[in-house]
Amino acid sequence: MAKKPTIFILNGPNLNLLGLREPTIYGHQTLEDIANKLKLQAEKLDVTVEIRQSNHEGALIDWLQEAQAVKAKAVILNAAAYTHTSVAIYDAIRAITVPVIEVHLSNPHAREAFRHKSYVGEAALGTISGFGAESYSLALDAAAKL
Amino acid sequence: MAKKPTIFILNGPNLNLLGLREPTIYGHQTLEDIANKLKLQAEKLDVTVEIRQSNHEGALIDWLQEAQAVKAKAVILNAAAYTHTSVAIYDAIRAITVPVIEVHLSNPHAREAFRHKSYVGEAALGTISGFGAESYSLALDAAAKL
Amino acid sequence: MAKKPTIFILNGPNLNLLGLREPTIYGHQTLEDIANKLKLQAEKLDVTVEIRQSNHEGALIDWLQEAQAVKAKAVILNAAAYTHTSVAIYDAIRAITVPVIEVHLSNPHAREAFRHKSYVGEAALGTISGFGAESYSLALDAAAKL
Amino acid sequence: MAKKPTIFILNGPNLNLLGLREPTIYGHQTLEDIANKLKLQAEKLDVTVEIRQSNHEGALIDWLQEAQAVKAKAVILNAAAYTHTSVAIYDAIRAITVPVIEVHLSNPHAREAFRHKSYVGEAALGTISGFGAESYSLALDAAAKL
Amino acid sequence: MAKKPTIFILNGPNLNLLGLREPTIYGHQTLEDIANKLKLQAEKLDVTVEIRQSNHEGALIDWLQEAQAVKAKAVILNAAAYTHTSVAIYDAIRAITVPVIEVHLSNPHAREAFRHKSYVGEAALGTISGFGAESYSLALDAAAKL
Amino acid sequence: MAKKPTIFILNGPNLNLLGLREPTIYGHQTLEDIANKLKLQAEKLDVTVEIRQSNHEGALIDWLQEAQAVKAKAVILNAAAYTHTSVAIYDAIRAITVPVIEVHLSNPHAREAFRHKSYVGEAALGTISGFGAESYSLALDAAAKL
Amino acid sequence: MAKKPTIFILNGPNLNLLGLREPTIYGHQTLEDIANKLKLQAEKLDVTVEIRQSNHEGALIDWLQEAQAVKAKAVILNAAAYTHTSVAIYDAIRAITVPVIEVHLSNPHAREAFRHKSYVGEAALGTISGFGAESYSLALDAAAKL
Amino acid sequence: MAKKPTIFILNGPNLNLLGLREPTIYGHQTLEDIANKLKLQAEKLDVTVEIRQSNHEGALIDWLQEAQAVKAKAVILNAAAYTHTSVAIYDAIRAITVPVIEVHLSNPHAREAFRHKSYVGEAALGTISGFGAESYSLALDAAAKL
Amino acid sequence: MAKKPTIFILNGPNLNLLGLREPTIYGHQTLEDIANKLKLQAEKLDVTVEIRQSNHEGALIDWLQEAQAVKAKAVILNAAAYTHTSVAIYDAIRAITVPVIEVHLSNPHAREAFRHKSYVGEAALGTISGFGAESYSLALDAAAKL
Amino acid sequence: MAKKPTIFILNGPNLNLLGLREPTIYGHQTLEDIANKLKLQAEKLDVTVEIRQSNHEGALIDWLQEAQAVKAKAVILNAAAYTHTSVAIYDAIRAITVPVIEVHLSNPHAREAFRHKSYVGEAALGTISGFGAESYSLALDAAAKL
Amino acid sequence: MAKKPTIFILNGPNLNLLGLREPTIYGHQTLEDIANKLKLQAEKLDVTVEIRQSNHEGALIDWLQEAQAVKAKAVILNAAAYTHTSVAIYDAIRAITVPVIEVHLSNPHAREAFRHKSYVGEAALGTISGFGAESYSLALDAAAKL
Amino acid sequence: MAKKPTIFILNGPNLNLLGLREPTIYGHQTLEDIANKLKLQAEKLDVTVEIRQSNHEGALIDWLQEAQAVKAKAVILNAAAYTHTSVAIYDAIRAITVPVIEVHLSNPHAREAFRHKSYVGEAALGTISGFGAESYSLALDAAAKL
Repeated sequence: MAKKPTIFILNGPNLNLLGLREPTIYGHQTLEDIANKLKLQAEKLDVTVEIRQSNHEGALIDWLQEAQAVKAKAVILNAAAYTHTSVAIYDAIRAITVPVIEVHLSNPHAREAFRHKSYVGEAALGTISGFGAESYSLALDAAAKL
Repeated sequence: MAKKPTIFILNGPNLNLLGLREPTIYGHQTLEDIANKLKLQAEKLDVTVEIRQSNHEGALIDWLQEAQAVKAKAVILNAAAYTHTSVAIYDAIRAITVPVIEVHLSNPHAREAFRHKSYVGEAALGTISGFGAESYSLALDAAAKL
Repeated sequence: MAKKPTIFILNGPNLNLLGLREPTIYGHQTLEDIANKLKLQAEKLDVTVEIRQSNHEGALIDWLQEAQAVKAKAVILNAAAYTHTSVAIYDAIRAITVPVIEVHLSNPHAREAFRHKSYVGEAALGTISGFGAESYSLALDAAAKL
Repeated sequence: MAKKPTIFILNGPNLNLLGLREPTIYGHQTLEDIANKLKLQAEKLDVTVEIRQSNHEGALIDWLQEAQAVKAKAVILNAAAYTHTSVAIYDAIRAITVPVIEVHLSNPHAREAFRHKSYVGEAALGTISGFGAESYSLALDAAAKL
Repeated sequence: MAKKPTIFILNGPNLNLLGLREPTIYGHQTLEDIANKLKLQAEKLDVTVEIRQSNHEGALIDWLQEAQAVKAKAVILNAAAYTHTSVAIYDAIRAITVPVIEVHLSNPHAREAFRHKSYVGEAALGTISGFGAESYSLALDAAAKL
Repeated sequence: MAKKPTIFILNGPNLNLLGLREPTIYGHQTLEDIANKLKLQAEKLDVTVEIRQSNHEGALIDWLQEAQAVKAKAVILNAAAYTHTSVAIYDAIRAITVPVIEVHLSNPHAREAFRHKSYVGEAALGTISGFGAESYSLALDAAAKL
Repeated sequence: MAKKPTIFILNGPNLNLLGLREPTIYGHQTLEDIANKLKLQAEKLDVTVEIRQSNHEGALIDWLQEAQAVKAKAVILNAAAYTHTSVAIYDAIRAITVPVIEVHLSNPHAREAFRHKSYVGEAALGTISGFGAESYSLALDAAAKL
Repeated sequence: MAKKPTIFILNGPNLNLLGLREPTIYGHQTLEDIANKLKLQAEKLDVTVEIRQSNHEGALIDWLQEAQAVKAKAVILNAAAYTHTSVAIYDAIRAITVPVIEVHLSNPHAREAFRHKSYVGEAALGTISGFGAESYSLALDAAAKL
Repeated sequence: MAKKPTIFILNGPNLNLLGLREPTIYGHQTLEDIANKLKLQAEKLDVTVEIRQSNHEGALIDWLQEAQAVKAKAVILNAAAYTHTSVAIYDAIRAITVPVIEVHLSNPHAREAFRHKSYVGEAALGTISGFGAESYSLALDAAAKL
Repeated sequence: MAKKPTIFILNGPNLNLLGLREPTIYGHQTLEDIANKLKLQAEKLDVTVEIRQSNHEGALIDWLQEAQAVKAKAVILNAAAYTHTSVAIYDAIRAITVPVIEVHLSNPHAREAFRHKSYVGEAALGTISGFGAESYSLALDAAAKL
Repeated sequence: MAKKPTIFILNGPNLNLLGLREPTIYGHQTLEDIANKLKLQAEKLDVTVEIRQSNHEGALIDWLQEAQAVKAKAVILNAAAYTHTSVAIYDAIRAITVPVIEVHLSNPHAREAFRHKSYVGEAALGTISGFGAESYSLALDAAAKL
Repeated sequence: MAKKPTIFILNGPNLNLLGLREPTIYGHQTLEDIANKLKLQAEKLDVTVEIRQSNHEGALIDWLQEAQAVKAKAVILNAAAYTHTSVAIYDAIRAITVPVIEVHLSNPHAREAFRHKSYVGEAALGTISGFGAESYSLALDAAAKL
């Protein structure tokens, strides 16, 4: 039986605090809530999702490389704060051929000026931001169709 | 019989040339091709779409105001070049209560530096960019769920 | 019988939404309310006012040129968002000899940084801002005395 | 008998030289000429004006605080050069509840780039500039109506 | 009989005021004077010229697209103030294959700093500026030889 | 009997309004309240405190020089708005050998961008900010131990 | 018996080299020396201190989150070089409700320009810098009083 | 017999390599090819051309001064890289009364950002760029008509 | 007997500490030493010198105005730190017709970047800097010859 | 028998993908290929090489400190993306006395603008870049001669 | 008989046109006029002057080095336009031990912004500017006293 | 007998003063010392070296072009100060096909900010800097292997 395609859903620093942190900006769902919903959606789309979170820039890079190594179909990446500062993640995205979709819960352009710059966005295939947890869901739809 | 909710899909300057213009960036589908697909999708989502294009900044503002006047459910806005320069469109989006979703065919962050600034993005609910014509389709899904 | 002097009162993008839009910034009066008050004031000052609004940058320029053509006594201009971006309006003001008075309902210096730059202000005779609808009234007094 | 409301009219550095200094920019009236006209206007408006000038940034701050202490109705402030450099005056305006109206004889936006920044304007209720001595007169009308 | 090649000569905001506006910068000829001379020159060069002016950014874009649609040989574009601010015109020039020649009566580099940036110049084939009405004439010679 | 060491506690513009001004930022204690508490603390630490306030930049410089002249043990300086603009105070701090401790009630880095620059901080021994009136108290402890 | 409140004292990159590294800037005490002194002080203040160091940005974020999880009373954070570059630590501080006090041994404003920006300072309750090891001691006093 | 008017055609650094260097940008003609064509054109226009090239900034200045000394009718100047960096050439152009026409083979605005600044353009009468060798020919026509 | 011409020699903040302050930059002479030497030199030049110092920006402005009022021949101004920040002194210099010569003991261009900007220099007749106390002496020679 | 001197060769993020990633920029050799060649070269130079790679900024700092602890002769550091953003690595290099040589396979100055800044370069002894794998080899020669 | 000390007076680009060029800025004296006056002054001061001019940056550097080689007492340098752009002259001044005095006829701070930067001033002993030809004379006095 | 390959070693302004100039930065060897060592090394590598120095930007360009004309194997270029300012040298390097290696004795990134920009580096094959005279030696090894 053919293996289902895998989609990595990688989450950066402080996203493990979702539901606790500044709910006016990020909403009340926890990362686990979102993960559960995405797993259900993945089943319908007939794909496997691999959902992870780390506060370490290096871990995100390790996982982007792993996505390539295991021939993942796509990566959905919410690099959170590293979005705006990490040339290393930018390089990692460009170093792999797996397509990467940038997601954000809120709209970074409507927040502090230092969130207007996106290294991830300069390397990613596309971006979905501002729809809360729905951003991930739209990204998963998009990833499944690639 | 209740009227279906309407979603405005507004397109800015030069998007009427889609399919002709720089296909390596914008793809081969014409705006009409995209419109036809969106109408089919709208039917499934049980919404009406109102699709327009203009090269005039003022026309886009007139239409954003019209969306409010006719109580549209949402606006999907690809302001093209005006995305990056129009404080007037930014003001129009903030002046209305209809939610506005920013879309782009390509990823502006991967292009010229002057496309990294987005006045539309600073006022919009959310952004979907980089998926070609699929950007509109994802936005329509998102709009229908609002 | 000698014709009364005419003063153009030109309003830029989104000002037709006054009273609806962000009332904490712009107040509750509509543009029509303001127009009515200005007409009464004009009568006392023995001048005619020509009050218009457009969302189109080009229309504002057309009207500035028309003010010159009909030998208007002055122009009161609230260019709204175009204040901050329009070199073309700046050129139009400098191309005519009719004096132009810049008005704003709110104080642009107390708002977003991109509203601190005023192309209109660099070409206008003077500026009145921050007094709500009263800004127009003060400008009309000033214009009538020119 | 009820005391008339008092309006402070505070003038910053070099304004004591009015009528002498660069008349093509500032006109030929002296500060005393302007003061005399404003006193006549005040009488008609049934307010008292307290007109002062200093070259010292600190004195302007002392007076802004005094306006608060004596429950002045408003302050009309031409901070001249300190307009563009004084965070301390900005803080003083924000520290008091008396409304402050910024005035300028000429239009700072039409002059050197370092006059485009206005700390006073970022804290003031409103601004009137470019009408010569008439700027004060319009401000006094506006202040009296507050 | 074969149709003569057509060259569009498009003029942006305030150029209809030529001969009136700041003659020390722009000279005393009206746009009509220039048009008449260009028509004579066109006859000698055996081309047709289509000369238009608008204060509307969108109209200039419409016409650039029309030039493409009617298979014009070239466009001579004096976008005036929009030269310096219009990403939309930049996109229009790049979206069409008709070669565009930027012209200016005066030398923008010798004027205000905000006229040093040229979006038109970044997309145009070439630029001719500083020769007064002669700029158009040189551009027409160049266009005819393309 | 040996004289107790003296510590100058110098306060810049608008700090005399403490307790009145923007209490959400600066708290409800007046400068006198703070002074009284610092005098008690000074007694315990066996030092004398000399507490002053001025709205004049020059006065602060005079006092910094006086601290040197009277061989003060240290200066605790809350230069308020002058913190961010005064090269002259920066020079005064460097011109004396008495150690200077910068204090702020609130955290300037969490406020407007123009408060992120600190000329005082570039010359001072150290900085204590963000603890409200407690900032002074911590600074006095630190000064007494020097 | 009630548990003593815990205060985390977190140290960023290269602080494990204290006493070795550029002693003219950082002094001769090692991090262990400082830790020992802080433990004695903690005993007197009847609090527990948890002192850690890491060169990894992610580890500092993990620990900030842990401070929240264990209901620490406060965090004293010397993020060293990450102070100036880490949006992720800024987000972590804002994501938790435990108050964070920024400390530095030396005065960053008196060093290289890239040390003038403090992401930590923009999110922290307050800052103490420039007093060498004494900065920690003052911070511990301040933390104990919160 | 009256002497024919002379037009200097001065070429800056690396233009002696024309035809060799980056032909996709500069074309295949050598500087000698261009010179020969210009000499023929000059004969028709009844003017003499003096064509020179140097890699030395100082030599270009010497020649601009020589053009003045020999009462040349005009200078056509392709300062190449010095266009963007040489205040000295800017000064030389302003120091002479002979009109100077700036030419470029390619369009500097369509190349690296450091080529967008033109010191030559800020001082020259006019500019012709982007037409390859034809830029010189148009400039010679323009110069002959001065 | 005709009165000798008077030359004001005005000194800004911290110059009263000369000889004490950072002698590697400013030398070992006190301001009094310099004043004595300048008085001797003045006698030889048959002029009177009026030498003053203040830490107050406003005082320097008062004195510049006084120089005008008493018809001084010239002002020699070492505005020290205010050189770099005071638009008010800039305005004062431009408001008077007495020529002002800027002096500095050291060379500001060889020091911190914020000393490279000179508002005084933008308004003054000329500048003499870098020669220590000799800067004043050269300026006095120059002033006497005006 | 005396121990051979050790040279650390530390590699930053994504360098483990060498040979896979953007070969037009980085060439076809893998990091292992390079490591093998460097080990042979080390043998000839009679030194030991310790070759490591990590995607974690903190790991690179740990290893720089370890190089100091084990008294390595030198460090050859290709910090890849962290070169341009890591103040922490800059601090680590300055905190140790082992000389550090910066290497890059490609020439960062010929790439994106954000690669022109080098924190590593500001602290390192020297830099070798642009020679592909040969950059390491030249660096090893240089290190061995230190 | 002892040789008199020699002072080099070096003049940069376009200064050979003095008296011809923009006389409202530079006055009517030629460089020869100035040279003759300086020679007379030199005789009185018992020094020899070596006066030269070149339009070549390299020549000025050659001469600065020659001044060192012949043990000149001082160099008076008017580098004209190279003042603002030449790092090479900056390096030359720092590479020699002969003191260099920067002179300018006019006041660069009162002219275009690009003349506010002075590489010469950052390396020179001192600066004299704004006194016309008298700037040289004051510099010669200063040089003779060194 | 086949001719040995030639490598040009070109040195820019002030490098003829090596050994004299700021020895703490540049070391004590003269350019002749370095040349002699490089000639010995060249012999071993079986190449010819052509070593030159000039203070003239134009001469360096002439020589880069000569290297191409004589089919040199490589150029080793220490452009010194011109490294940071010369677009003309940048163009010359790109105009030739001979590979150019940038060398510096010291590490420009560890010096003044204006030395962080390298036009040479943006065009060169690679860079070696910071190893003193050894930089040349490493570059010669690298060049010989090309």
